[in-house]
Amino acid sequence: MDKHSAEYYDGIQERLYTAVIADVMDELGYVRQVMSYEIRPLFDDAKIVGRAATMLAAEVYELPAKPFDLVMQLLDELVPGEVVCCTQQGSTRAATWGELLSTHTRARGGRGTVLDGLTRDSWGIIDIRYPVFARGLTPADSKGRIDVMAIRVPIEMGGVLVHDGDLIVADYDGVLAVPQAIEDEVIAKALEKVSGENVVREILAAGASIRQVFKDYGIL
Amino acid sequence: MDKHSAEYYDGIQERLYTAVIADVMDELGYVRQVMSYEIRPLFDDAKIVGRAATMLAAEVYELPAKPFDLVMQLLDELVPGEVVCCTQQGSTRAATWGELLSTHTRARGGRGTVLDGLTRDSWGIIDIRYPVFARGLTPADSKGRIDVMAIRVPIEMGGVLVHDGDLIVADYDGVLAVPQAIEDEVIAKALEKVSGENVVREILAAGASIRQVFKDYGIL
Amino acid sequence: MDKHSAEYYDGIQERLYTAVIADVMDELGYVRQVMSYEIRPLFDDAKIVGRAATMLAAEVYELPAKPFDLVMQLLDELVPGEVVCCTQQGSTRAATWGELLSTHTRARGGRGTVLDGLTRDSWGIIDIRYPVFARGLTPADSKGRIDVMAIRVPIEMGGVLVHDGDLIVADYDGVLAVPQAIEDEVIAKALEKVSGENVVREILAAGASIRQVFKDYGIL
Amino acid sequence: MDKHSAEYYDGIQERLYTAVIADVMDELGYVRQVMSYEIRPLFDDAKIVGRAATMLAAEVYELPAKPFDLVMQLLDELVPGEVVCCTQQGSTRAATWGELLSTHTRARGGRGTVLDGLTRDSWGIIDIRYPVFARGLTPADSKGRIDVMAIRVPIEMGGVLVHDGDLIVADYDGVLAVPQAIEDEVIAKALEKVSGENVVREILAAGASIRQVFKDYGIL
Amino acid sequence: MDKHSAEYYDGIQERLYTAVIADVMDELGYVRQVMSYEIRPLFDDAKIVGRAATMLAAEVYELPAKPFDLVMQLLDELVPGEVVCCTQQGSTRAATWGELLSTHTRARGGRGTVLDGLTRDSWGIIDIRYPVFARGLTPADSKGRIDVMAIRVPIEMGGVLVHDGDLIVADYDGVLAVPQAIEDEVIAKALEKVSGENVVREILAAGASIRQVFKDYGIL
Amino acid sequence: MDKHSAEYYDGIQERLYTAVIADVMDELGYVRQVMSYEIRPLFDDAKIVGRAATMLAAEVYELPAKPFDLVMQLLDELVPGEVVCCTQQGSTRAATWGELLSTHTRARGGRGTVLDGLTRDSWGIIDIRYPVFARGLTPADSKGRIDVMAIRVPIEMGGVLVHDGDLIVADYDGVLAVPQAIEDEVIAKALEKVSGENVVREILAAGASIRQVFKDYGIL
Repeated sequence: MDKHSAEYYDGIQERLYTAVIADVMDELGYVRQVMSYEIRPLFDDAKIVGRAATMLAAEVYELPAKPFDLVMQLLDELVPGEVVCCTQQGSTRAATWGELLSTHTRARGGRGTVLDGLTRDSWGIIDIRYPVFARGLTPADSKGRIDVMAIRVPIEMGGVLVHDGDLIVADYDGVLAVPQAIEDEVIAKALEKVSGENVVREILAAGASIRQVFKDYGIL
Repeated sequence: MDKHSAEYYDGIQERLYTAVIADVMDELGYVRQVMSYEIRPLFDDAKIVGRAATMLAAEVYELPAKPFDLVMQLLDELVPGEVVCCTQQGSTRAATWGELLSTHTRARGGRGTVLDGLTRDSWGIIDIRYPVFARGLTPADSKGRIDVMAIRVPIEMGGVLVHDGDLIVADYDGVLAVPQAIEDEVIAKALEKVSGENVVREILAAGASIRQVFKDYGIL
Repeated sequence: MDKHSAEYYDGIQERLYTAVIADVMDELGYVRQVMSYEIRPLFDDAKIVGRAATMLAAEVYELPAKPFDLVMQLLDELVPGEVVCCTQQGSTRAATWGELLSTHTRARGGRGTVLDGLTRDSWGIIDIRYPVFARGLTPADSKGRIDVMAIRVPIEMGGVLVHDGDLIVADYDGVLAVPQAIEDEVIAKALEKVSGENVVREILAAGASIRQVFKDYGIL
Repeated sequence: MDKHSAEYYDGIQERLYTAVIADVMDELGYVRQVMSYEIRPLFDDAKIVGRAATMLAAEVYELPAKPFDLVMQLLDELVPGEVVCCTQQGSTRAATWGELLSTHTRARGGRGTVLDGLTRDSWGIIDIRYPVFARGLTPADSKGRIDVMAIRVPIEMGGVLVHDGDLIVADYDGVLAVPQAIEDEVIAKALEKVSGENVVREILAAGASIRQVFKDYGIL
Repeated sequence: MDKHSAEYYDGIQERLYTAVIADVMDELGYVRQVMSYEIRPLFDDAKIVGRAATMLAAEVYELPAKPFDLVMQLLDELVPGEVVCCTQQGSTRAATWGELLSTHTRARGGRGTVLDGLTRDSWGIIDIRYPVFARGLTPADSKGRIDVMAIRVPIEMGGVLVHDGDLIVADYDGVLAVPQAIEDEVIAKALEKVSGENVVREILAAGASIRQVFKDYGIL
Repeated sequence: MDKHSAEYYDGIQERLYTAVIADVMDELGYVRQVMSYEIRPLFDDAKIVGRAATMLAAEVYELPAKPFDLVMQLLDELVPGEVVCCTQQGSTRAATWGELLSTHTRARGGRGTVLDGLTRDSWGIIDIRYPVFARGLTPADSKGRIDVMAIRVPIEMGGVLVHDGDLIVADYDGVLAVPQAIEDEVIAKALEKVSGENVVREILAAGASIRQVFKDYGIL
């Protein structure tokens, strides 16, 4: 299947979830791929599967010569299936995302936004069910407070090193990044693991010993 | 219109929201008016517009001679249209707000409560849909832990200097304070800005270039 | 009534709430029984009343000889009416709780889980309405990151010292622990106090002076 | 001996140190008497033994009607042998202590100052070897930023509840408070314990097994 | 006197100190000019007076095309009398300063370095008595971790907005920035204030009432 | 040379320092080997080179059955040349190190102690010049507060994963761990790099362009 198609991303979104993907990456030795638990969805059933389009933002204290220049470049050149990923490097002075950017990104085939930072215009975004994951909300605009300094570079988000093009998966449990080098293996193994868990769940619901189940299935 | 009437506050609540008001204050050079993103509504559709009635609370380690004395003074003398604003100065040992105070304040025409601190009795407050914005919840009462030391004085809430009488606006995006000296100008300009954003939203939803839209309308 | 029966716990859950229990403990001088406001329910109407079954977890950096050994021992020997209480000692690298453990615990008569730490598998847990209180969510598994080092020992959770067997009460306001030595007295006095608050609420809703009400009833 | 005399305080300062006093209080069940490790001496050999004279400070955002009023009252009425103890309740916006206050306090027989907050005028204070323990230094004055709201009340300093009149002991290891009710017992037992440690030190320096020494002497 | 000469800066360094300058700026309404107390000198008698040459650094996760390019530009073009001022925007992953940069800056007439960040090569820097103020030390180099993204722009350091060209004054009490617009007035008034304090110190050392002295001189 | 001899460790201590070793590890791709800048030496010229003997400590709330059991085992079996490395997992309630342990460790050939935690008995330790690196000091003993749960296991210290047997190097710049697998290569390359820096220092002190020097030598 075309790994840049909506079908591919939708398939993962319907059949997998972050916890099982995180487990498979652990087994492969990729143990630092889950972002901080402080990055949360804007609404409860928000989910994202897509490819990272990265932005590095920094605080500024005067209006840049060309405000929003790199954001606009990234968004106008966004490839369908991408997920806007932006770090504010710890700053919570302002929001780097909002409703108009969400409307535009959806129109261009973007699948969501993950921020190690803040968003605003929550009502508008929730209204169109555009999935945003962030540290929080603020009415404060980024203009003159925070500006994007580089795009399509490696960034750190919630403790995870994210490269442009990484597969981003986000649901109510949290957000993680799958490096492209291991993507095929991770997806394949995660699909297998999901089946196993369904079996164990039924056995435990019937009151079985957890020690026995772990011994028999190796799953907890 | 009478700037202390329910009609005035309701009008703002229906037609404006925090993000557009924050933008207008930014343009006027008032760039520190938005409180920390950690102050959140107790229920999702809570909204407040009204005038700050301020309280400064501090930790105590023995029961004061007259516990709750200043809180009771502020609440019994509350003017309809006011919003109780209280800072616990970083302390999260206890809640300075609860259900009975909410019931009383609503009966007296108060429009809500903003706490740089904690509240309790969440079920009772949510039940009557009284809007409270706070850092969080706790069952712990303030008696013998935190007491109000001064009322109607300037206080800092979530990084914002709030004066008694400031216009407080709060919605799902967050909380901000509009100083009275600029209130008329801010409200007028915010009403204008809202119209402009509606136009841009439609253009972007149709797939336009974000760079072109920003060039044409100066809005992002 | 049998203080280890479901009827006993259900009775408390229906008639009392954390704020009134916290007040009564304050009056008795037990002023450090309410956990940090950062420990929150996984879904809004989650409630827990039951007896603490404690676990102390610590970070690890290699797979232990017998992973999950003590967790499995605690869970397989769990007594109906118990509440799994686990501290991760400040670590947020991984979740020590999840859906399969929830399914098992419910099957064995456990009444919920409180974590000074993180959980995962949120959708599965919410689906079966198993009440979990935690600092947050993460897809990251505890295997090779965090392991239980001791069970049935005193632990600190959100600033509260919790002994195995303490009565745990949790609702939307937060979580607290009632030491067994004062349990009977606390429950009796809390039931009395609830009646008094109902009276005051009606008087205040009618617009009475809060100072007068506090003078008459001593409740705020 | 007169427990409010310089001889009494000097005797403790010469023969005891904070670690041994903390150990004795632990044995008596007083396990929350040592302040946070972030409260440090202004110069390396600063030491304090004396009685707490407490002040509770809070942030202010306009000049109080009578600035410095309570500080001046406390200092002008200071009893020889007292130690000024002030909490800024987490605020680090300004210093509540400085050189002129140090000069005055020394002239009045004060034995030092402990701040859960900041000091300034470090050079002047170090010059006269007046012992100050604090979270740090800042050039920013408290005027219009922080003001004392109450004196001679219980306060919390670095996690310890300090009552006016408590015995304060501070050295390079840190700061602690001895409640008056246990002061005689603590001092007597600490003097005994110091002798025991001297014996153990020599045995260990000679290369003995630490397990054997702990078995023989119960000291580590 | 030439306000860009070593004589001018040395004169201020000998006759003034940060606390008195901070007081004068407070009186003029400039109340946010003192940096966080966590920015400390590398050795005890380090002092700096000079003009800010600003750098904005950000985290990077791959080696930039031209590493160190902007640092080298700033340093090779440094004007005698300047103070290198760099913010790492909260990152403590690496040091943006070290011994070789110190040696170079001194050779070019630079008067010191202030970092809202970390330095390294402490022994070499202390050896040549080059004054550095920073949040701390680390052996970790900035190469591939942090890179300068802009020079000669406004930056925030320890909560203070610093413009290129601001007068920087740093001593054991801390660090502050004097905006050029008020520099003459601040220096003149600070020189006056220093004389007043000397008088008061002697009076207090003789045991005078602090209330009386404050009434007579208005200084505390 | 015998890599477990005092000569070997002394040689490294005299000829190398942490910054140059950190640089060499960076070049080899080992970029997470430097501990947090908050772990500092107890006295200014403290230095350590030796092999990690690791301990994992956790908070406890009752006296363990065999208090200090694992610490005593580790210390009585300590191999000359080892460095005691202990993490308190974020807890700062008490000190896990002190003077008697220092005296014993020195007598057994230990080369120092690194704590992601606190020490006490500072005067005694400084007196014998036993090098300790820690987050800070406290008079509070670990007895009944913190106990060692495992020894000779991998632990995390200040963000670095430390294995038993790693080479620990600490000086005034900070603390780092060199994994044994790359130890020979790191030491060899660090010795080379030190020579290069001496040349560059002299050129820069003479006023050379930093851009030119970086171009010629690749060192900054």
